[in-house]
Amino acid sequence: MTLLDPLFGDPEADALLGDEQRVAAMLEVEVALAAAEAEAGVIPARCVTAIRQGADPALYDRSALASEAARAGNLAIPLIRQLTANVAQVDVEAARWVHWGATSQDIIDTAVVLQLRGATLVILRRLAAAGDAAAVLARAHAGSVMAGRTWLQHATPVTFGLKAAGWLSALDRARERIGLALWRAMVLQLGGASGTLAALGEHGPSVAAAMAADLGLALPDLPWHAHRDRLGELACALAIATGTLGKIARDVALLAQTEVAEAFESASDGRGGSSTMPHKRNPVGASVAIAASLRVPGLVATMLAAMPQEHERGLGGWQAEWETLPELVHLAAGAACHMAHMLEGLEVDAARMRANADITHGLALAESVSMALAAHVGKAEAHRALEEASRRAMAEQRPLAAVLAGTPAVTRYLSAAEIAGCLAADRYIGSASTFVNRALAHHASSQQDD
Amino acid sequence: MTLLDPLFGDPEADALLGDEQRVAAMLEVEVALAAAEAEAGVIPARCVTAIRQGADPALYDRSALASEAARAGNLAIPLIRQLTANVAQVDVEAARWVHWGATSQDIIDTAVVLQLRGATLVILRRLAAAGDAAAVLARAHAGSVMAGRTWLQHATPVTFGLKAAGWLSALDRARERIGLALWRAMVLQLGGASGTLAALGEHGPSVAAAMAADLGLALPDLPWHAHRDRLGELACALAIATGTLGKIARDVALLAQTEVAEAFESASDGRGGSSTMPHKRNPVGASVAIAASLRVPGLVATMLAAMPQEHERGLGGWQAEWETLPELVHLAAGAACHMAHMLEGLEVDAARMRANADITHGLALAESVSMALAAHVGKAEAHRALEEASRRAMAEQRPLAAVLAGTPAVTRYLSAAEIAGCLAADRYIGSASTFVNRALAHHASSQQDD
Amino acid sequence: MTLLDPLFGDPEADALLGDEQRVAAMLEVEVALAAAEAEAGVIPARCVTAIRQGADPALYDRSALASEAARAGNLAIPLIRQLTANVAQVDVEAARWVHWGATSQDIIDTAVVLQLRGATLVILRRLAAAGDAAAVLARAHAGSVMAGRTWLQHATPVTFGLKAAGWLSALDRARERIGLALWRAMVLQLGGASGTLAALGEHGPSVAAAMAADLGLALPDLPWHAHRDRLGELACALAIATGTLGKIARDVALLAQTEVAEAFESASDGRGGSSTMPHKRNPVGASVAIAASLRVPGLVATMLAAMPQEHERGLGGWQAEWETLPELVHLAAGAACHMAHMLEGLEVDAARMRANADITHGLALAESVSMALAAHVGKAEAHRALEEASRRAMAEQRPLAAVLAGTPAVTRYLSAAEIAGCLAADRYIGSASTFVNRALAHHASSQQDD
Amino acid sequence: MTLLDPLFGDPEADALLGDEQRVAAMLEVEVALAAAEAEAGVIPARCVTAIRQGADPALYDRSALASEAARAGNLAIPLIRQLTANVAQVDVEAARWVHWGATSQDIIDTAVVLQLRGATLVILRRLAAAGDAAAVLARAHAGSVMAGRTWLQHATPVTFGLKAAGWLSALDRARERIGLALWRAMVLQLGGASGTLAALGEHGPSVAAAMAADLGLALPDLPWHAHRDRLGELACALAIATGTLGKIARDVALLAQTEVAEAFESASDGRGGSSTMPHKRNPVGASVAIAASLRVPGLVATMLAAMPQEHERGLGGWQAEWETLPELVHLAAGAACHMAHMLEGLEVDAARMRANADITHGLALAESVSMALAAHVGKAEAHRALEEASRRAMAEQRPLAAVLAGTPAVTRYLSAAEIAGCLAADRYIGSASTFVNRALAHHASSQQDD
Repeated sequence: MTLLDPLFGDPEADALLGDEQRVAAMLEVEVALAAAEAEAGVIPARCVTAIRQGADPALYDRSALASEAARAGNLAIPLIRQLTANVAQVDVEAARWVHWGATSQDIIDTAVVLQLRGATLVILRRLAAAGDAAAVLARAHAGSVMAGRTWLQHATPVTFGLKAAGWLSALDRARERIGLALWRAMVLQLGGASGTLAALGEHGPSVAAAMAADLGLALPDLPWHAHRDRLGELACALAIATGTLGKIARDVALLAQTEVAEAFESASDGRGGSSTMPHKRNPVGASVAIAASLRVPGLVATMLAAMPQEHERGLGGWQAEWETLPELVHLAAGAACHMAHMLEGLEVDAARMRANADITHGLALAESVSMALAAHVGKAEAHRALEEASRRAMAEQRPLAAVLAGTPAVTRYLSAAEIAGCLAADRYIGSASTFVNRALAHHASSQQDD
Repeated sequence: MTLLDPLFGDPEADALLGDEQRVAAMLEVEVALAAAEAEAGVIPARCVTAIRQGADPALYDRSALASEAARAGNLAIPLIRQLTANVAQVDVEAARWVHWGATSQDIIDTAVVLQLRGATLVILRRLAAAGDAAAVLARAHAGSVMAGRTWLQHATPVTFGLKAAGWLSALDRARERIGLALWRAMVLQLGGASGTLAALGEHGPSVAAAMAADLGLALPDLPWHAHRDRLGELACALAIATGTLGKIARDVALLAQTEVAEAFESASDGRGGSSTMPHKRNPVGASVAIAASLRVPGLVATMLAAMPQEHERGLGGWQAEWETLPELVHLAAGAACHMAHMLEGLEVDAARMRANADITHGLALAESVSMALAAHVGKAEAHRALEEASRRAMAEQRPLAAVLAGTPAVTRYLSAAEIAGCLAADRYIGSASTFVNRALAHHASSQQDD
Repeated sequence: MTLLDPLFGDPEADALLGDEQRVAAMLEVEVALAAAEAEAGVIPARCVTAIRQGADPALYDRSALASEAARAGNLAIPLIRQLTANVAQVDVEAARWVHWGATSQDIIDTAVVLQLRGATLVILRRLAAAGDAAAVLARAHAGSVMAGRTWLQHATPVTFGLKAAGWLSALDRARERIGLALWRAMVLQLGGASGTLAALGEHGPSVAAAMAADLGLALPDLPWHAHRDRLGELACALAIATGTLGKIARDVALLAQTEVAEAFESASDGRGGSSTMPHKRNPVGASVAIAASLRVPGLVATMLAAMPQEHERGLGGWQAEWETLPELVHLAAGAACHMAHMLEGLEVDAARMRANADITHGLALAESVSMALAAHVGKAEAHRALEEASRRAMAEQRPLAAVLAGTPAVTRYLSAAEIAGCLAADRYIGSASTFVNRALAHHASSQQDD
Repeated sequence: MTLLDPLFGDPEADALLGDEQRVAAMLEVEVALAAAEAEAGVIPARCVTAIRQGADPALYDRSALASEAARAGNLAIPLIRQLTANVAQVDVEAARWVHWGATSQDIIDTAVVLQLRGATLVILRRLAAAGDAAAVLARAHAGSVMAGRTWLQHATPVTFGLKAAGWLSALDRARERIGLALWRAMVLQLGGASGTLAALGEHGPSVAAAMAADLGLALPDLPWHAHRDRLGELACALAIATGTLGKIARDVALLAQTEVAEAFESASDGRGGSSTMPHKRNPVGASVAIAASLRVPGLVATMLAAMPQEHERGLGGWQAEWETLPELVHLAAGAACHMAHMLEGLEVDAARMRANADITHGLALAESVSMALAAHVGKAEAHRALEEASRRAMAEQRPLAAVLAGTPAVTRYLSAAEIAGCLAADRYIGSASTFVNRALAHHASSQQDD
């Protein structure tokens, strides 16, 4: 664990991603291999117990693993050396059959798949929690009118419920996408030196099938040593989720700006104090998710750029994945964890939202008038009329309603009451509720699927 | 079209991706909007004909669009201006109702979705063709023994059929993944200024439903102006496919090396001549696919980094997609097109493959002997014995069989005939045929799905 | 030119980057090669005139170039074919000596260097203009107090002059960095087929020297066909500049938010109108620079990932650069052009800045009181006291001064006047002026260097 | 240290990059701050001793730092809390003055600069060592003729000395580029909460100057909290170096292919054994450098994408750098370390190189004949004649010389002896020696600069 892991990560996911778990997962794979080979009669049945005993993670010297890996070029070689020695302590004969017929990459890849499974399930839970929290916000604030903002400028009004429903909808899609990618990626790697399982003679397929069943993994059509698309797909699905989490974080950070002050991360746990400015409540959760959304794309680019791996097993591309993929999962998990927490504790100031929606004194609702006028004079002319009136309202610092009241091109078609109606933010939120309800319904059905 | 488009792209896909098609697709969206609004009674029914007439792409001045877009900040604003004018030529009244209730992004996003659909379908066909060609190779060369290569060094033998089956299997997965991502991404964008469809009053949902049906798109739960995950998913699926295509290209380029000479791109069409070296046949197709596999990851990183778009519609992130996504599709299509062509015309020298498999004079098959010996003395000791014999064979430039014949630690357990059997490449290809058959069966069933 | 080039690019730079200029630059290189070879006596002197005549860009059929390039794998081969034919029209003998001893990559790379030179000089001018405009702002607003903002929250005050000086300083560094990278990258490429210039016999070095002199380029120690670090350095320098431009754009976009309203892009040229919301003035320039800052990092990643090019001339990596580098330059130029324009026309509302600085009613200046108090009770205790007072002020919605007046732990050490002094934003801007002056002095001296 | 750090990194650089060093560097910065403030009379002189004592890295609880950082959002806040407590143990009064007037980012950024300095100097030494080794190879093999290879196909011959000189030249440029970037990046960060140093009153500039002098850093014109270009430049320079190291690694890995067998990583230290194939000597060093060259571009993209940081101090962008930059330095250092080692121990088989240069039986030297013939019939016609002869030679499996001897269009102009001369690889290496000498001279002069 590095000093910054607890900040950027998710403690539960990190507990499954670290070096210790890497070693444990590799040992689990060696045991499953031995068991499958014993079942197929490839190695003596009695070896399995000894190999299982020798594969106790507590027996392993991680510092020796690290320094030997630097010479060997991968972690499996020293691990197998230690495993063989540990098994020999129990049963010299069994030590002969350790790692029988497999190659380093079989062990490393299958172990990664196992680690990914655990950590990704944590992420799925975090995303579900974030979605649940967003659903609560969407429902609670379906009627909380606020300024819509496009290009970072006030636009026609929305509701905070709609904004939360947008988050919810994207979180649900993220979960579905990751679920599918995970399902596709959960495949055994077992091919031996060149992917033919030659060292297992005729028993290759049956050993692989038994091993996959034991580990709860699917059996691929063939070994995928140099075909990394499944891992790439999972990396991408996690990256897209991180992008969505970054979007939510950015939205909240912008709403929390001093001038806007519409929503805040909860400060209940003493987060985000400043070393110099006692009044500040820094949006720590948002900073973590935004940072993740900046880091993950580069890691995805690495995973993709590393895909063209040479021949049966490549040179450099595979190695480029070893730290990149766990780092990506760590960051995605951290973003999901922080955003679930942030959404669950989000402090929303609906009154301030409503008040802010009016600070343009009608300008943000010019479209509403424009549309009403356009029914009479056409869109282009109405647009021009409102553009001019808006410019005048800004220049003269007057409410738009006042300017429009003095504009015959408008008053010819619209009464003062009609204009006032157009300029009431609460009346111009269109189908916001319908959209919120659809997102909630989708979320409810996606929960039942789980 | 730029000078290099025909080299890096696919003519069919490019014909759907260019600026001309962008304009045409935007106009198609405006027409569908008008038709749906007429159906819902939002605009007069008679306007539709005039809007359709005014939306004839031939009427548009692309140079004016370009220069006005530079001021307006997007392409929809000048397009709508021209459309309104063109419609007015036909029916002044109808011109009032152009683009009614929609926002620029509705038009631009839905048009992108339409362009993506066309181009992605072309890519799917190319991948299917590449897969078919790989299947032919896999079947034809299921018995063509060749050197396995790991870390760019000879390893135990494989068959060329197995290598082709690996390509096939990845191509089939790429197709399935893209198909699914395409299906998810084919959704309408219609939200109006802030995503509430306020300008359509109560008719928002019905207009959107009619428009989606007309365009053959799905209706999303809510507008997705600032939630770009679906496009990100399609970008990722195409990128992963490009990675697989780059892997195939790299394999062939390595096989085509002068010293290896096992497979070549077809030269039938005069490709790959050198300006200075008359004998050369440069692997042009491979260079294109490898270049694509280097460029696409950066474009994906951009798509992902652009995801955190602010509030209802963002600033800068959306704009970053406009050229990035079409470029990515263009490159993926080019890679798919070139690799389909390369695989269909691949010239394979199976005799050379077989010959090359023996150039280590048995060293690459040391594992085979090692495994046989290990059954007697255990894996570690057998490995050590063969490592030593291999080193001696290399140092003394003698065949491994000869060295082993003089090694009592080996001859004690293995007869000369057994050693010779171990060192016959043809006998040490394990489950290669099984794997080939599985990939072919999967491909056959995936074709039926289409 | 694509439809979006005028929006995302700089017209002057784009005029040097397009396909037409690519062809012209390649022809210029061929002429320089012939002239140098004639000077060295490698080819007959009389050929040069004919080659120059045949190299008139107007003679070239770009559509044929494009389609032949797709077969040949690069643009030089068809260009040389056309050049040879064109020269033969003038002088059959001279046509024999076209492209003598060079390889395609010599022509393509040197032409790229020439295109980069032109476009980069435009960018340097834009950055200088942006710097000049920032300098004007820094000087004019050295006393314009505004809220400092960290983590998107109000912090202790700054001046707008300081913010502009920060932009200025970074722009000046960007210019220096690009200038240096450009200087290093402006080298001739001439190596022939494998980088030995063998086809020129003993004349290789003299031809290269003459050609470099003619084109105003430096002579490298050796050909750099597969060593792309100089181009990578220029790409990086431009990318860093784009990052700075993106930072400026983001700052202005945030200042232009409806609730903040402190600075705006000039609307003088009708930019940024909305298709639906007549009152809006979208920050188009900022959107372009932010989009560039999102796209350029991915392009840099491609340039870097493409660096490991094989042997004497690689496969795929070089091709990956062909469109990536011009695209990157195009985007950097566009960002520089838009930001120069934006800074030159920036509308600053200093009164609003001053007013916004006070909206926390003293909270943002809590540090000022904290420091004064800390001189008496230590930093930690003072920090705690102010944190508590700030929390109370927020909870009770009272000005910090009022809360502090009722806090004995504070009033024991600080008088009401001292507290008021601490809470005056104008008095707590520290060394802002010194920093502004340093940045201005640096800029003045950097201008003299030009 | 993770399990894979020793494989992918450089032990010397890693010893300066870890968490322990991060804490130590931050404490060093706090001490320098106190000393500078005491010198300027801002804090009592006697505090410095106590602060120095309290800043003993051995006193710090890293696990507490990690968990508190997760709440605080950065590492400085808990560090300062512990520092204050530790100082209070020594001198309660001194504890009041800890971290006086600075902000978290001042400490974190300046500490990063110090860590970068140490690690980058290690990298510069590795690059110098790699360069020295390449120089030895260039000199020793200036006459070792080998096949030139372009597009992964044999081209006209080169010397191994020329290839090594290309590496040397790029390594020297990498060193110069990094040296310059390092020099620019070695600047103090000290700005206080918003970059004005307001908390230091009038003493800001003098404190900063004293602190910079103490730490051996330059004084920037103004604080650079949200302007990250200098770090970006250093990241880019290291990335470009990594690209060059990846190119060298790829070249050697290709030369080490079983069929090529021209150069090998030294196996002296037991590196690169295979877990299953006893004869293999996997190019571990190359795999590390290639992996680094795949990972670093994505990290650079992150550094660049994170540049647009908001206002005085941003949200998310800065945080994205914290682990990205050290990771990038770690990987660059590892690549440099491994490549220095590889080049120093490279085993070169010059005889095999010479033999391989002839395996095309003259085809790779077709250009040589083509140029000789072109002097008589022009380039285009000669090219065509040789292209045809080459095709015939390949089809009929005959040496090119034999085919040419029966080609009147050639024999009309060239005698058999002339043809033979053209086809002697040793006579067609052009200016290779000149280029080697230039690179060696440049290297010699760059060493004197150090």
